[in-house]
Amino acid sequence: MEVTRLLHITLLITLLLYFCQAYNYETYFYKQKVDHFSFADPDTFNLRYLINDDFWDGNGGPIFFYAGNEGDITLFADNTGFMWDIAPEFNALVIFAEHRYYGVSLPYGNDSFTKLKYTGYLTSEQALADYVELITYLKSAIDGAKNSTVVAFGGSYGGMLAAWFRMKYPHVVQGAIASSAPILQFTDITPCEDFGKLVTADFSKESPECANVIRNSWAAIDSVTRNEAGLAWLTQAWSLCKPLKTPQDITSLKNYLVNVWTNLAMVDYPYPANFLAPLPAYPIKVVCSHLTEANNDPKPLLEEVFQGLTVYFNYTGDSKCLDINQQADSRLDDYGWDFQACTEMVMPFCYNGVEDFFEPAPWDFKSFAQTCYQTWGVYPRPFMAVHMYGGKDISAASNIVFTNGLLDPWSTGGVLWNVSETVVSLIIPEGAHHLDLRGSNPDDPPSVIQARMIEKTHIQNWIDEYSARYDE
Amino acid sequence: MEVTRLLHITLLITLLLYFCQAYNYETYFYKQKVDHFSFADPDTFNLRYLINDDFWDGNGGPIFFYAGNEGDITLFADNTGFMWDIAPEFNALVIFAEHRYYGVSLPYGNDSFTKLKYTGYLTSEQALADYVELITYLKSAIDGAKNSTVVAFGGSYGGMLAAWFRMKYPHVVQGAIASSAPILQFTDITPCEDFGKLVTADFSKESPECANVIRNSWAAIDSVTRNEAGLAWLTQAWSLCKPLKTPQDITSLKNYLVNVWTNLAMVDYPYPANFLAPLPAYPIKVVCSHLTEANNDPKPLLEEVFQGLTVYFNYTGDSKCLDINQQADSRLDDYGWDFQACTEMVMPFCYNGVEDFFEPAPWDFKSFAQTCYQTWGVYPRPFMAVHMYGGKDISAASNIVFTNGLLDPWSTGGVLWNVSETVVSLIIPEGAHHLDLRGSNPDDPPSVIQARMIEKTHIQNWIDEYSARYDE
Repeated sequence: MEVTRLLHITLLITLLLYFCQAYNYETYFYKQKVDHFSFADPDTFNLRYLINDDFWDGNGGPIFFYAGNEGDITLFADNTGFMWDIAPEFNALVIFAEHRYYGVSLPYGNDSFTKLKYTGYLTSEQALADYVELITYLKSAIDGAKNSTVVAFGGSYGGMLAAWFRMKYPHVVQGAIASSAPILQFTDITPCEDFGKLVTADFSKESPECANVIRNSWAAIDSVTRNEAGLAWLTQAWSLCKPLKTPQDITSLKNYLVNVWTNLAMVDYPYPANFLAPLPAYPIKVVCSHLTEANNDPKPLLEEVFQGLTVYFNYTGDSKCLDINQQADSRLDDYGWDFQACTEMVMPFCYNGVEDFFEPAPWDFKSFAQTCYQTWGVYPRPFMAVHMYGGKDISAASNIVFTNGLLDPWSTGGVLWNVSETVVSLIIPEGAHHLDLRGSNPDDPPSVIQARMIEKTHIQNWIDEYSARYDE
Repeated sequence: MEVTRLLHITLLITLLLYFCQAYNYETYFYKQKVDHFSFADPDTFNLRYLINDDFWDGNGGPIFFYAGNEGDITLFADNTGFMWDIAPEFNALVIFAEHRYYGVSLPYGNDSFTKLKYTGYLTSEQALADYVELITYLKSAIDGAKNSTVVAFGGSYGGMLAAWFRMKYPHVVQGAIASSAPILQFTDITPCEDFGKLVTADFSKESPECANVIRNSWAAIDSVTRNEAGLAWLTQAWSLCKPLKTPQDITSLKNYLVNVWTNLAMVDYPYPANFLAPLPAYPIKVVCSHLTEANNDPKPLLEEVFQGLTVYFNYTGDSKCLDINQQADSRLDDYGWDFQACTEMVMPFCYNGVEDFFEPAPWDFKSFAQTCYQTWGVYPRPFMAVHMYGGKDISAASNIVFTNGLLDPWSTGGVLWNVSETVVSLIIPEGAHHLDLRGSNPDDPPSVIQARMIEKTHIQNWIDEYSARYDE
């Protein structure tokens, strides 16, 4: 009896640690220029950053700098345990900088997304320049930081930023850990169908039946929702927060599903986690345990699908209904990313329904561009990122570790080969989206443990190399 | 008699070649975005570029790309004979791109310098992005250029651009010849007095007396121009186009002199040339041959000075009067550079009159910034270039040849050490400002001949290295 109780308490503490990983930091703001590259706009704004010096060797110890990506920076601070785990052994100062136009770092406050003349400064180049100014300021303002080695960290788009940061400003960052950074997910570099194929593979690996249930679900939705009774049935069967009424609602529902299956592939971690949503260990396995009868009639098939969806939207049991407008942690702000995807971060995706389980959808740049223009008043520049950062041609770079998990659909746009002696690629076969950046966990597969060790070796090399300048 | 005549004709042809070096090119325009880094301003403009394919191997031959600097691009095309000289042996396509806001590449036409919202896009970052877009376009548009190696060339600020171009966009340019590129002429890197000391040394090397005449001339001007008679005398003695009247006129006159002595140090070439002005060989020697009596009274001293000035402003004998507003070739547009110097290219200069021959003038950033604000409505960002490009910390760069002539005062802000195996510094002891970029000349000193040979070796290496990618 006592033992069972103790087990329960242990389980409770473990769950608390998983879901409320609270790291310690102080919050500051740094005044940034809205435009770092021209002088036509004199505006400034406050960029938020988080800082922790608990472990720091104030006599030149390194700076671990997280290059914030598309969300509230606290989300990334809470989900980048690797930096916190290794900060003590490196005696590092830990900094998380928020990406402009996300979280509370809004250059024009509530107006930031209202007009192109306000929103237009949301680009990766401007964000990197923010980080240059912030680090330069901190190194001069913090006693003992003047000669500190700076290591950039980032996952996903943050990993792209970390890698590009080192490429463009090697005098500011001495090395970069770029985790799950799809710097090749651009036009004419990575085939648009690869991403969806890998999402599908993650499910069909559990069981081909599971993937087939999803593949068949699109037609089942269409068939069921042809009339009002069906719309009402699905609304009720799936506990939707808002009743389905129009064809647009069906499109939104399908978009939600596309995102859920994709997100599950991204966060298929080997232990319970709460990155995009609170989820059990290996969530795809759990989802697929419900998706077993692909040949069912539409209604029973969709009931199966709902059992799977429940794992995603209601693992905690706290959700009263399924809100198809809430695809992931609300701290991931889709507004800003929609603008970035419509301007510089044009990443082509396409599905054919055969090699993947999605509804067939070709990549239609023209219609995509038209939608962007309607939404934001701007046409995309699909080659901007490649022209700026080089696409596949990164042979002149140095001191970057690219890591990719092979479960992660974003790995299809990642750097999967060793570029040079100092620009290396680590493959984590059992890894999902930036698993290596998460805190260490008893259930980590050996491949991620090894990847982290190699990352640490590189970090030490960068520190040794840079420190040697000041030892002479 | 006949021999003398032949000599005369030969001399005439030689002079014609010196002064009318006409290289062959076609002129084109490419539509550029005014702002490459943000989406707030949708404007575009036409950037001029010159192109010559006479020598080009249209099957992947290299592209020699001059990164235009602060002037009409034809001036640089006419004065960068090195590129034209070696294009045939490399079978290279020759391109000269005009820098935005100079020559005819004015983003807002005649309004370009009227308002900060028009002028504000005149920065080195935007100019480099223009070149990225232009080269990327040309490589895709010109048959056979797709896999061409691109070598950037530039002198002075153009050399800074060439070096930075390689640092920031190594996927676009495979190597850079950065001639007399003072990338270290910024706050807290190079002492502000070094430049004036080297100008002075160029004159005192001819004779200490020569430098002393100039050193004494400032007081002589003050003494003579104390009254109206003196102002009239100096106006007449120096054949000034506009009579001296106000103290402001005296300041302008002195500024003119500072520029003349500086320009002479820059273009102290071993043969007659016409870069900033038509000048004889070793113009400082010729000037100094007139500046021999430093202890003269003010008026005879200033008469001496005028003899020296005549070498600069009227070597051709065509000038009817001395125009102190015409400091150099009118194709060097001071308007744009004044804005750049007031914003990003803040280069501190100071004089003490002891180690140099100028009137003492400390570097007064505050008053400089105030003047900039009054003129342009903008405050300088003195650390912008260093934050963007790294200042002295260029250890991560590759494939750059920095060349500096030790006669050239800009060499004090140049890279005078080998940074790595592929980022090297070539010193040309007898060289003035980017002498190596000029066409070969019978009177070239051996050091520049050797420098050019080493430059060619590096260029060949870059071509070999890049071409190897496509041979496999």
